Amino acid sequence: MAEQADGAGAPPSRRALLARIGAVAGGAAMYQAMSALGVAAESTYSGPIRLEGDPRGASVVILGAGLAGMVAAMELRRAGYRVQVLEYADRAGGRCWSLRGGDRYTEMGGETQVVNFDQGLYFNPGPWRIPYNHHAVLDYCKRLGVALEPFVQVNYNALVHGRAAFGGKPQRYRAINADYQGGIAELLAKATKQGKLDEAVGKQDQEILLESLRAWGALNADMTYAKSLLTSDRRGFERDPGGGLTARPSFSEPVALKDVLSSRLWSYLVTGSLYEFQTTMFQPVGGMDMIAKAMAREVDGLVRYNAKVTAIRQDGNGVSITVQDAGGGAPEQVRADWCVCTLPLSILSQIEMNVGAPMAAAIGAVPYSASVKVGLQFKRRFWEQDEHIYGGISYTDLPIRMISYPSTAYGSPGKGVLLGAYAFGPYAYEFTALPAAERVRRALDWGATLHPQYRDEFDGGVSVGWHRVPGAMGCNGAWTDAKRAEHYDNLCAIDGRIVLAGEHASYIPAWQEGAILSSLDAISRLHRRVVSA
Amino acid sequence: MAEQADGAGAPPSRRALLARIGAVAGGAAMYQAMSALGVAAESTYSGPIRLEGDPRGASVVILGAGLAGMVAAMELRRAGYRVQVLEYADRAGGRCWSLRGGDRYTEMGGETQVVNFDQGLYFNPGPWRIPYNHHAVLDYCKRLGVALEPFVQVNYNALVHGRAAFGGKPQRYRAINADYQGGIAELLAKATKQGKLDEAVGKQDQEILLESLRAWGALNADMTYAKSLLTSDRRGFERDPGGGLTARPSFSEPVALKDVLSSRLWSYLVTGSLYEFQTTMFQPVGGMDMIAKAMAREVDGLVRYNAKVTAIRQDGNGVSITVQDAGGGAPEQVRADWCVCTLPLSILSQIEMNVGAPMAAAIGAVPYSASVKVGLQFKRRFWEQDEHIYGGISYTDLPIRMISYPSTAYGSPGKGVLLGAYAFGPYAYEFTALPAAERVRRALDWGATLHPQYRDEFDGGVSVGWHRVPGAMGCNGAWTDAKRAEHYDNLCAIDGRIVLAGEHASYIPAWQEGAILSSLDAISRLHRRVVSA
Repeated sequence: MAEQADGAGAPPSRRALLARIGAVAGGAAMYQAMSALGVAAESTYSGPIRLEGDPRGASVVILGAGLAGMVAAMELRRAGYRVQVLEYADRAGGRCWSLRGGDRYTEMGGETQVVNFDQGLYFNPGPWRIPYNHHAVLDYCKRLGVALEPFVQVNYNALVHGRAAFGGKPQRYRAINADYQGGIAELLAKATKQGKLDEAVGKQDQEILLESLRAWGALNADMTYAKSLLTSDRRGFERDPGGGLTARPSFSEPVALKDVLSSRLWSYLVTGSLYEFQTTMFQPVGGMDMIAKAMAREVDGLVRYNAKVTAIRQDGNGVSITVQDAGGGAPEQVRADWCVCTLPLSILSQIEMNVGAPMAAAIGAVPYSASVKVGLQFKRRFWEQDEHIYGGISYTDLPIRMISYPSTAYGSPGKGVLLGAYAFGPYAYEFTALPAAERVRRALDWGATLHPQYRDEFDGGVSVGWHRVPGAMGCNGAWTDAKRAEHYDNLCAIDGRIVLAGEHASYIPAWQEGAILSSLDAISRLHRRVVSA
Repeated sequence: MAEQADGAGAPPSRRALLARIGAVAGGAAMYQAMSALGVAAESTYSGPIRLEGDPRGASVVILGAGLAGMVAAMELRRAGYRVQVLEYADRAGGRCWSLRGGDRYTEMGGETQVVNFDQGLYFNPGPWRIPYNHHAVLDYCKRLGVALEPFVQVNYNALVHGRAAFGGKPQRYRAINADYQGGIAELLAKATKQGKLDEAVGKQDQEILLESLRAWGALNADMTYAKSLLTSDRRGFERDPGGGLTARPSFSEPVALKDVLSSRLWSYLVTGSLYEFQTTMFQPVGGMDMIAKAMAREVDGLVRYNAKVTAIRQDGNGVSITVQDAGGGAPEQVRADWCVCTLPLSILSQIEMNVGAPMAAAIGAVPYSASVKVGLQFKRRFWEQDEHIYGGISYTDLPIRMISYPSTAYGSPGKGVLLGAYAFGPYAYEFTALPAAERVRRALDWGATLHPQYRDEFDGGVSVGWHRVPGAMGCNGAWTDAKRAEHYDNLCAIDGRIVLAGEHASYIPAWQEGAILSSLDAISRLHRRVVSA
């Protein structure tokens, strides 16, 4: 499978990155130009939106009560619009969703899973972390009173694992990180001292380079990376320093660079330095859907749930939405002056809609990623108790791709729920073709390679394949370079009385920040049109 | 000053490291031998201590109610000893200490500071973070119900600053980290492609090396580190990606390696990969002294506060401690069969005590580090609101050395207290020679270089120089290689009826873990002696 052959970083970062590479490569000249204009703001979000001017009683129908839809509803109502929201599901939030004990989830195909997690435990099938630079999400959390706590992305004591690496024995992140850094520092220092960098680096800079490599790579005085206090103080000790007469540490043996290289475990060292995964990251206390719930309280009374949109028609006077109630009955028409449509393109592309050819083509052009997550409950937090792993992520080239440990309730004595798999692409299809119980069983089998305690401590699980989630049918809009160049602007431009929003209408695909910024941009443009009409 | 000329990492890590280097360099053969014996345990702490056997009513007097003393008291009482603890101060905890609004602190010399912090805010003058590998501290927290939360050590969005670097303009950690990594990856890749590593690295390994450098260093397809989506996704964008039609990012311009090198800001990139500063770190919710308070509850009734020890005498039958009450009155004698003395050597070396020449020499041999911390309250959390810095540490070569932002209550609207200075060595002496208000003023002046908001938002501060703290007279025992070799075992060995404990009797100087492990080791040996007598 493609993911397994691919060693470059964790799936989500890579996915986001590739999407952006695709997005940008075609337009370098434009960005150069923007940069030359001195665009100084680091973020495109600079605080609460101001929609000035009177919409004079204009009405808007918003399709979808995910984050994009609810932000549009809150802000447009505040600006004076008459707002109604139509939501397919029986809850708000869309992909911002948490599963808890007692919850039932029925996927496309009809299989229902009932979650058995203990009280207070949860699993986020969708978004699960918030970067410090996602200013809009953070600001809405603040304004809506959603408490945040740190999400641990990189844990130096977590595991990195490859089936063909080190006889299949999981390694500690800290050891591979130290040995890779030390190995390349030693190589570069050696080349420098042998005069091989004389063309590239001036003599004076070479001296500072050597000094920096020694400090940064934990090299000894002779510029080698070898078993020592210095290297054990990065990769970990064979026996830790202690107290009294049982105090002396013993050092651990580093892995040679050639073995680190061939293990390919270096591919897991990148994630924490990526912009979206750098410290400090956050999660809402109690589950990601605390954001959805807080927004839902704000728009209480505006949302009609269980309302399936089957057609979107516009004319010179407004928009008419055909809605079918989940409880049955005849389809109804909902009228408004304007429409903000936040439905995923995977859904929207199947709905009858009279927009112009450019937007129609854009809607049909963007495929959606398949992805699957598995949440597993265990009888005790053995990863903390036995292995001193507190939060963070272990990576593997097994189909589960990663195991993420809860970034909350550290040291608590009861059960714990971890993310037991997070995979994309063909594997996600293959995996979710299995019955739910079988998916959980496989996640357990694979995970037991990293944590043998899995077998004794397992206590229930649930799986969500996004391409099988009703109302989503995919994880996120999977843009390519070519598709962005051809369709992105057409997707975002207002078409008559309709404007689209959601993560798919952003340069931050698959992130809540993309959904919110897209929504704010869309309603700003819509509002300008309304008040200038 | 020594610290200012020195670029290798943050003061505390360097200090701990140097102490350990000193400790170990003389005894490499011994560690090799231990290692060859297959000492497998990673930690010297393997769960609650078991003191088996009946002490038959033996009594013990414990000097000092810091962490070492209170652990000894808890565990020896549990094992059946009659325990009393003598504490100089009017509170338990020793260097495990937090200052809050209303607290008064009088340092040696007589100056009293009154803390004006808002309710709920605090400052830890002593220990302030707990590594994941400090298993004993974490286990005591768990057993005593001390809630923990993550302490953010490395924050990619925090600042790194040098007076002579980049015209004195603070840089973001993420940018320097990305540019250093990218710069050395490019250098090494170039050397590899030019065949300059052919002797050192086999052809097949060279291919993987190049692939790894490209991923790890964010190199472009031509193996250069240059302005691009890839590098902005590490160092940060000039303008972040957004949503809708305002979405396109603009890239930031990397700093050339030669400029990163000469800035010396690379010296701040090491800390987070050191064993004691790796993720996941913790702090007690509400202040470090939550540990002290929890232990004090356990030993309630055993501790006599305000009790100054002026002499320690032993004979064949037991130990006699001369105690002077802070309230005045005649000195008293406290008798016990055994003594566990946890007083800092800075204090103990000034107290009359009849131990053998080896222990006496050891007690007199270890100087104590000087250090100073300044806690500053501000009217609002401008570092979060204006600069999106959530927790973590900014580093500078100014005398304040660092600014650390609170790892808790993220996004809260009220005031905030940060660590405005943490310095060691000569500067600490120089600084604490000033009146307290002047120290705070200087910390403000220097800190304003990194955060101009300091001037408008300042709302009170407090400073603690450890060499001026009564009952401590120093930050920690500052071992050297030679001193360890000559004195460490003599310091830790039981002398007649007396055994010493504390961070100074450990290989983890200046950390609470050292104090606890030292105490557990000391009382284990003492107990064996008692039950085998």
